[in-house]
Amino acid sequence: MSGELVGIGLGPGDPELLTLKAVRLLGEIPVVATIASDRAEPVAARIAEPHLAADVERLAFRAPMHADAGTRAAFYDEVATVIGEKLASGRRVGVPCLGDPLFYGSFIQLLERLAPRHPCSVVPGVTAPHAASAVLRLPLARARESVLVLPATLPDERLARGLATADTAVLVKLGRHLPRIRRLLAKAAPDFAAWIASGVGTPEERLAPLDRWQEPVAPYMSLLILRRAMAAG
Amino acid sequence: MSGELVGIGLGPGDPELLTLKAVRLLGEIPVVATIASDRAEPVAARIAEPHLAADVERLAFRAPMHADAGTRAAFYDEVATVIGEKLASGRRVGVPCLGDPLFYGSFIQLLERLAPRHPCSVVPGVTAPHAASAVLRLPLARARESVLVLPATLPDERLARGLATADTAVLVKLGRHLPRIRRLLAKAAPDFAAWIASGVGTPEERLAPLDRWQEPVAPYMSLLILRRAMAAG
Repeated sequence: MSGELVGIGLGPGDPELLTLKAVRLLGEIPVVATIASDRAEPVAARIAEPHLAADVERLAFRAPMHADAGTRAAFYDEVATVIGEKLASGRRVGVPCLGDPLFYGSFIQLLERLAPRHPCSVVPGVTAPHAASAVLRLPLARARESVLVLPATLPDERLARGLATADTAVLVKLGRHLPRIRRLLAKAAPDFAAWIASGVGTPEERLAPLDRWQEPVAPYMSLLILRRAMAAG
Repeated sequence: MSGELVGIGLGPGDPELLTLKAVRLLGEIPVVATIASDRAEPVAARIAEPHLAADVERLAFRAPMHADAGTRAAFYDEVATVIGEKLASGRRVGVPCLGDPLFYGSFIQLLERLAPRHPCSVVPGVTAPHAASAVLRLPLARARESVLVLPATLPDERLARGLATADTAVLVKLGRHLPRIRRLLAKAAPDFAAWIASGVGTPEERLAPLDRWQEPVAPYMSLLILRRAMAAG
């Protein structure tokens, strides 16, 4: 009988924003697999660590995030093969994920590869947009408002079209796209107030109105919250 | 010295989806105020209850959710006055909120009234769209996708314009708007796959593809997740 694959949302980075369910599962699950970028600190593994069982088996993978699509796909094929063998032997495998596993998470790559042959479940988590909204005390959505989340990696035309329809917009994966986004906002969204939030809930947390953010770029794990000025009242 | 107003996200309804931070604060805070609709069970109060300190002071308000805007505003003025007096006397007041306090939460009404004169903070929570996505094992957003959250209470034209730009759309506050939404989707979004999720994480949880949901309407706390078919691959 197959073991179960469990994606476990850890929340945005603050160790206190784990859910009770995430904590319980991290302590129960016999095999824990973490995936981190090959260019960044393995944050999910660090947050999960204090909650793991003493005799847990750890699998730590480093993803070639900046490689071409084919290389990345081959990497996830390989990870799915290794995890699939554990599942086939009847073991339950947990995958701790920053934020929510199904919200821009690499866990989706594993789910798509393993769900056809193994039972899978997901524990949702608090995401960075909600954490940033909380720290800024800035509502994401009032009663009849809409919220749009967009990756800053999309082309200008797609971003401008989205901004035209939303009361609140959140641009994730900001990083090196910031200079282009600044130009786009000046042109396509002059009526939005903008705040940048980086590393929310971590020791590296930084928050600022966009016009006071001096650096030309932002860390990769940054986001921009845009609220239409007329929506604020 | 003023006490602090603390909005505490409880997550979507599953008592295990509280964060460690929410649990800690619920146990520490001397005054807890809950706001429930006058026509529904006070769910937030029920979820918070097991975590409250033995000597906590409880304030329970019932909001006239279906009254006109003026009556609702007067209600929140009154609640803010009562809570403001506690804050002015130096006491910390926690407001447990289903989901996330700043995501369609009535806490926003209190924040807007009390933040000018009192310190305020917010603990973010897991929201219903993420909980539904987890139970359905349906990604909300893959790498370069956008997610749009829209209240089903908006007029057709606003909904159709939003649906035209998003890869995933989540319609919240579905309830009695379901018949109109069905007609709109058939016309404006035939390429979307649709799932309805109601009471996620509660004993009343129900999930179904929209075309297998037989009833004409849905409970108020229901949502619809729409994923563009071409985005699924």
